[in-house]
Amino acid sequence: MADKEQIQQAIKEQGEVVRKLKTEKASKEQIDEEVAKLLQLKLQLGGDEGKHVFVLKTPKGTRDYNPKQMAIRDKVFKTIINCFKRHGAETLDTPVFELKETLTGKYGEDSKLIYDLKDQGGELLALRYDLTVPFARFLAMNKITNIKRYHIAKVYRRDNPAMTRGRYREFYQCDFDIAGQYDPMIPDAECLKIVYEILSELELGEFLIKVNDRRILDGMFDVCGVPQEQFRTICSSVDKLDKVSWEEVKNEIVKEKGLTEEVADQIGEYVNIKAGGSDLAEKLLQDPRLSKSKAAVAGLTDIKLLFSYLELFQTTDKVVFDLSLARGLDYYTGVIYEAILTQAGVAPVPAPKDANGSAGDEGPVNVGSVAGGGRYDGLVGMFDPKGRKVPCVGVSIGIERIFSIVEQKAEASAEKVRTTETQVLVASAQKNLLEERLKLTSELWNAGIKVEVLYKRNPKLLSQLQHCEDTGIPLVAILGEQELRDGVVKLRNVANREEVDVSRADLVEEIRKRTSES
Amino acid sequence: MADKEQIQQAIKEQGEVVRKLKTEKASKEQIDEEVAKLLQLKLQLGGDEGKHVFVLKTPKGTRDYNPKQMAIRDKVFKTIINCFKRHGAETLDTPVFELKETLTGKYGEDSKLIYDLKDQGGELLALRYDLTVPFARFLAMNKITNIKRYHIAKVYRRDNPAMTRGRYREFYQCDFDIAGQYDPMIPDAECLKIVYEILSELELGEFLIKVNDRRILDGMFDVCGVPQEQFRTICSSVDKLDKVSWEEVKNEIVKEKGLTEEVADQIGEYVNIKAGGSDLAEKLLQDPRLSKSKAAVAGLTDIKLLFSYLELFQTTDKVVFDLSLARGLDYYTGVIYEAILTQAGVAPVPAPKDANGSAGDEGPVNVGSVAGGGRYDGLVGMFDPKGRKVPCVGVSIGIERIFSIVEQKAEASAEKVRTTETQVLVASAQKNLLEERLKLTSELWNAGIKVEVLYKRNPKLLSQLQHCEDTGIPLVAILGEQELRDGVVKLRNVANREEVDVSRADLVEEIRKRTSES
Repeated sequence: MADKEQIQQAIKEQGEVVRKLKTEKASKEQIDEEVAKLLQLKLQLGGDEGKHVFVLKTPKGTRDYNPKQMAIRDKVFKTIINCFKRHGAETLDTPVFELKETLTGKYGEDSKLIYDLKDQGGELLALRYDLTVPFARFLAMNKITNIKRYHIAKVYRRDNPAMTRGRYREFYQCDFDIAGQYDPMIPDAECLKIVYEILSELELGEFLIKVNDRRILDGMFDVCGVPQEQFRTICSSVDKLDKVSWEEVKNEIVKEKGLTEEVADQIGEYVNIKAGGSDLAEKLLQDPRLSKSKAAVAGLTDIKLLFSYLELFQTTDKVVFDLSLARGLDYYTGVIYEAILTQAGVAPVPAPKDANGSAGDEGPVNVGSVAGGGRYDGLVGMFDPKGRKVPCVGVSIGIERIFSIVEQKAEASAEKVRTTETQVLVASAQKNLLEERLKLTSELWNAGIKVEVLYKRNPKLLSQLQHCEDTGIPLVAILGEQELRDGVVKLRNVANREEVDVSRADLVEEIRKRTSES
Repeated sequence: MADKEQIQQAIKEQGEVVRKLKTEKASKEQIDEEVAKLLQLKLQLGGDEGKHVFVLKTPKGTRDYNPKQMAIRDKVFKTIINCFKRHGAETLDTPVFELKETLTGKYGEDSKLIYDLKDQGGELLALRYDLTVPFARFLAMNKITNIKRYHIAKVYRRDNPAMTRGRYREFYQCDFDIAGQYDPMIPDAECLKIVYEILSELELGEFLIKVNDRRILDGMFDVCGVPQEQFRTICSSVDKLDKVSWEEVKNEIVKEKGLTEEVADQIGEYVNIKAGGSDLAEKLLQDPRLSKSKAAVAGLTDIKLLFSYLELFQTTDKVVFDLSLARGLDYYTGVIYEAILTQAGVAPVPAPKDANGSAGDEGPVNVGSVAGGGRYDGLVGMFDPKGRKVPCVGVSIGIERIFSIVEQKAEASAEKVRTTETQVLVASAQKNLLEERLKLTSELWNAGIKVEVLYKRNPKLLSQLQHCEDTGIPLVAILGEQELRDGVVKLRNVANREEVDVSRADLVEEIRKRTSES
């Protein structure tokens, strides 16, 4: 109690400090600082006294999903999960946090975006940054060398998000990966087929899947005279080509990364080659310089093979081989790919570019990547005590951006999104029938019918019908003295207002019949 | 590079320190300390050099779900979600972390179990402890006064878990809540009906739902002479009655909480009354002392009303009014309930009791609570700037314990749990048919059939058939030179090995027909 009084006294004094500053028209910074102290003191009180200082918000970069958003989210997930299952994938789940050291050394510069948990004694933990590293940890830990799995879960990045464009600090990833030692490019082609199927089924508009290979990039850098230890950083520069012009990238390569203009120009000759297909791979195999790089030849040969499988999968109309595709992550070792939506006007808010221009960010022209992935044959080995490698290839669907687009489409459409699946409301036009309503409701629940009943003793018929209109319930089962005497229920179709008496014994069957399509 | 060399030099030196200590047979503590420093140095290197020091585990109190566990988990969730939807619930989602202050002052003593995020600049955050407080925050933030929603998500508690009994630091909750100003006990009765339905459908064995009311407990404490400010702490003591004897509870009330033996005995007279139904409520309404407490009378009257609705819902065979049910959480204001499994042998590992004997913990006799909840009419008001109250009642299903039980049942059963839904494997007995296999596979995917194909150029027929046996794929579509010439596919039933030629045009229909039941 003494404590409480002390705090209350401190609050009183701090209140006066704030009032005085306001009277003196002190600077905003100064006032804000003292107000913050005041709020802090009030928080210490807790309980009722503290309640008025609650900041009613979700943490920066996060959001709630309301029921309407959830209905849309579930529909999108269903399409994606169906596709993953159609391709024979199992699913698994991992904890939302990992030992800090599990994540260490996997994300290069982006490691600074990892959310750490506070050290409260015990292990040092961090929220997962993606689903790929936990997957690799799972494989190594359980000595699994063969699996095709999907994983849909939230990941966490302390980024400065542009939420209007579907970018958050907490966001879902939908990953599909194939682990195992197989013949080249078959699983890789399946991953691309999956992206093709999902983007087609979700009807997001025209899209394009760009493909490249880390070994081609490395070989290209090599023959252009980039020192090997700079391959990755030059990769990061090239990765920006979908957002900025070659001149800007060249500038970065020369001014920031210290390569000669000559080397930069040679890189430019390659990355500015127009995207193509198998024919482009064939042409580059004849390139006098590239053909000297073993890595490039291996990559180009695999690209040709990949396209032959994509031909069989009837997906080549939307897949191009693009030498300018680089992708930021360190762990890729072979083929890489990224899907973009090419129809203008999909991203409605052309927000200014982020200051840090981080990967995955898009300018107003490019509507942005909605899926990406590649081959990472070394990651599992990083976790295995003996360094045993498990070759992996996978794809991650950029689901938050897809949610935004589908939400916009739903907003624009006339069709109302239902947030419940209730088939029938049990109602009454007369008073004192609560017990009869509850009894019928329970009968229907027991028969597996989705039923609601208003939680009022004597609700008005109008408000019962209004509830059906508001929430899209298609049927009303109306009870009255007469119906009870006759052993029937008046079944009303909300849309056309038709009413018909149905015997109580036939009611379940009749409701099932009428709602079997919905 | 200089950095790296420095670290490598430091690793070399530290390695020698460790070797020397080992040679000298120094104490384990001393060696461990120097080894830890060595590992730390190696971690700094990252990449390949660091790989062998990874501790391959999930954080304490967490676990991965492998595909088999996921198949079981999804089945249990499906049953629960179906029930929630049958009762007309919408769903929503909230971020995994909240502003720290949102959680402050809601959980009493258990606040120490909250996981805080590290202060990395910006807001102070903590992982959600339950789904109820985020729900109340959501209602206040969006000024929602009426909603029936379910929320299935993970919550986090830095407890010392007994994982063998399905208790973790990261675990799922399945919450169903009804918010809104309604006539008394109707939504409350629906919550109990939901628990009844879910526990029946999951076939977990016999169960019992205990019901009480905070106002009855408060009234009882009042007439027994407990000072009002001690109501909550005495509640906590009474809450332990399902685990320890009345003697131990009495001891705590007298020795630790400082009440007189006389007061304790009076409490004992009430909480040791055998559980009953509506009749017990009626009897207590006649109790000369209890009837003097307005709170107790209000609670008892509502219990009677509740039982009249439960009668209509045909659930009274498993619901009892039990004066010893207290429940730990501070925010309950009215009816409270808890469901327990009463069949022995459900919890297989009778582990010793936790040192702190925290709420929700069970001894070897009691197989433990699998659902609980109650009415909390004041929580939303704690978040509302003007303190506007939104009455709420809800229930939380203790899903982790249910998973454990269902998993054990699956282990014990002969039936194999499938982890994929693949309907057909496209196979070949001959070499050089990869392209034909991929083409057929793609055709079937495009028709919506769930298909797999082995990622090998020339897999053996035996290994293809073995894959079907291993994963439960019921059909094999076999291609050969002859079949290709004839425009047919040999469709094989894996279970009975029957093979039949199906024309390529009819294949999709035939597969659908044969797998329509699965």
